Amino acid sequence: MFVTLKQIEQARANLRGIIIPTPLLDSRTFSSLSGNEIYLKTENLQKTGSFKIRGAYNKMASLTEAEQARGVVAFSAGNHGAGTAYAAKALGISATVVMPENPVLSKKNAILHYGAKTIEHGTTSIDVHKKALQIQEDEGRVMIHPYDDEFIIAGQGTIGLEIFEDLPDIDAIVIPVSGGGLISGIAAALKELKPTVKVIGVNTEGATAMYTSLQHNCPVEIEKVNTIADGLMCKKPGELTFAHTQRYVDDLVLVSEKEIADCVSVLAERAKLVVEPSGAAALAAIINGHIHLRNKKVAVMVSGGNISFELYQKLIREYNERNYKTSEGVK
Amino acid sequence: MFVTLKQIEQARANLRGIIIPTPLLDSRTFSSLSGNEIYLKTENLQKTGSFKIRGAYNKMASLTEAEQARGVVAFSAGNHGAGTAYAAKALGISATVVMPENPVLSKKNAILHYGAKTIEHGTTSIDVHKKALQIQEDEGRVMIHPYDDEFIIAGQGTIGLEIFEDLPDIDAIVIPVSGGGLISGIAAALKELKPTVKVIGVNTEGATAMYTSLQHNCPVEIEKVNTIADGLMCKKPGELTFAHTQRYVDDLVLVSEKEIADCVSVLAERAKLVVEPSGAAALAAIINGHIHLRNKKVAVMVSGGNISFELYQKLIREYNERNYKTSEGVK
Repeated sequence: MFVTLKQIEQARANLRGIIIPTPLLDSRTFSSLSGNEIYLKTENLQKTGSFKIRGAYNKMASLTEAEQARGVVAFSAGNHGAGTAYAAKALGISATVVMPENPVLSKKNAILHYGAKTIEHGTTSIDVHKKALQIQEDEGRVMIHPYDDEFIIAGQGTIGLEIFEDLPDIDAIVIPVSGGGLISGIAAALKELKPTVKVIGVNTEGATAMYTSLQHNCPVEIEKVNTIADGLMCKKPGELTFAHTQRYVDDLVLVSEKEIADCVSVLAERAKLVVEPSGAAALAAIINGHIHLRNKKVAVMVSGGNISFELYQKLIREYNERNYKTSEGVK
Repeated sequence: MFVTLKQIEQARANLRGIIIPTPLLDSRTFSSLSGNEIYLKTENLQKTGSFKIRGAYNKMASLTEAEQARGVVAFSAGNHGAGTAYAAKALGISATVVMPENPVLSKKNAILHYGAKTIEHGTTSIDVHKKALQIQEDEGRVMIHPYDDEFIIAGQGTIGLEIFEDLPDIDAIVIPVSGGGLISGIAAALKELKPTVKVIGVNTEGATAMYTSLQHNCPVEIEKVNTIADGLMCKKPGELTFAHTQRYVDDLVLVSEKEIADCVSVLAERAKLVVEPSGAAALAAIINGHIHLRNKKVAVMVSGGNISFELYQKLIREYNERNYKTSEGVK
């Protein structure tokens, strides 16, 4: 049931030449802000603008020819949809992506751009999941689940292999958590390679499905989510991802919505990176003191960069108005 | 008189552990927009937010102890000042930086943050140069010229070594040009390593010192500059940098101010990179058809990321208003 290092290494072989082994950037500014050595794993620079392509491509490359011929269906607020659509195009597979109504336009357009079909349905992760299950049944398409699938988890786990190669003396890693696929894969990889590495997850206060589930010792559906981070809106973790998180993750902390919002601007100012709110959550947790590490080598996941310009302008303007002191623009 | 590969390799040895060997990112979007394989050399991710630290540190590390004890003086619109200040702090040297009046605040603050002194004087590169010469004479400080110095040129040339290692089958490189230090160093490195590489410079229409000088076969002081790119405001190239450019550079093209402004937003949207206008000039030239290459492997210098949030917001808003069609947010 637990994804093995061998499966993750197979995923890496599948992904070779398809994805970018993204840079791991050390940052003096964030190191000094957090009292640790901080290394940013920049999956915002990944193809499709987020890590999601890793799992989606690995899953689809692992299907039989007959399954590939049936086409696939996915449900997603955006990044997993883009990853699925990109992978489907690369592999010559038909894809349908179910999104919540009124999706982030740039994310929807990315999916369409790669040649997939989009369907808008409902407002929550539960709604789009149900609709995707119905399409799976009606059309015989293969479900590309956004997280609760061993091939998806193994695909995201390839990030752990890259980080360990770039930073073999890593002490800890901080990872944003929604459905749990990213943290499950990376934790499975790193804990096998180096059991002493601390794996720390981050939920936003506005969407606490994994945090609540860990408290209850089983996957729990939370009543509502209310977050700026459209990549962290999952209402219920998966069975597989919950099990991996329970087994491998050392701690899961909360970060506030305001801390996430500010961190989008901080990453622009100090690291010269465009990130979406979900991509800023892990850094926000460590620079705001929610993670109790000192003098450690800490990798921080910057998971994606797909933010609408409307929201980006708004966050930068608000940050400027609130914080303008002596913007240093340095790292 | 011409900087040698050996000097550039010595510069690399000096810079080891000080600078980041920045990522060279391939971009499907820009490749498809330009009809070439585009690789972005991301010096916006460099320490201090631009390439300038390479030359400044190399110069100062090459001073005698007696020279280091006298302290240094530099003149700069910002990035060379930050590079000088950072290097001075790392080496324990006193530094004064002369800036034009009303400098970009974030750039001035960066210089102060590193512990250097700033002096504001005049409005042009000629004004600040004169003031720095006076301080050199009055205080006995060593001049850290922003470009017309073989150690500065050799330091910037280390970028050429990195690019060649990452992309040995490179066909061409596109580089923004102001005083000419960056293009002189990179051209000297690449032309020695692989003489067939085409080196193409870019001037903005708002500041054409090198372009005009090449037409006149000698360094010419242009009457005025009027550009959004505060890193490209040089009014007269150096003797050394002019000679290197004349010898090594295959072509120098012009890009419009509007193309630069738009390209700042395009780099945010498609590459998830925060860049300053000077840092967008080279990409703007190739995606807008000013460079006649097809199906080549082309490195494009993204030279810096130090843009004020006020200007950044403005450029993104204007781009959005002008171009909002189907923002794809993909690469």
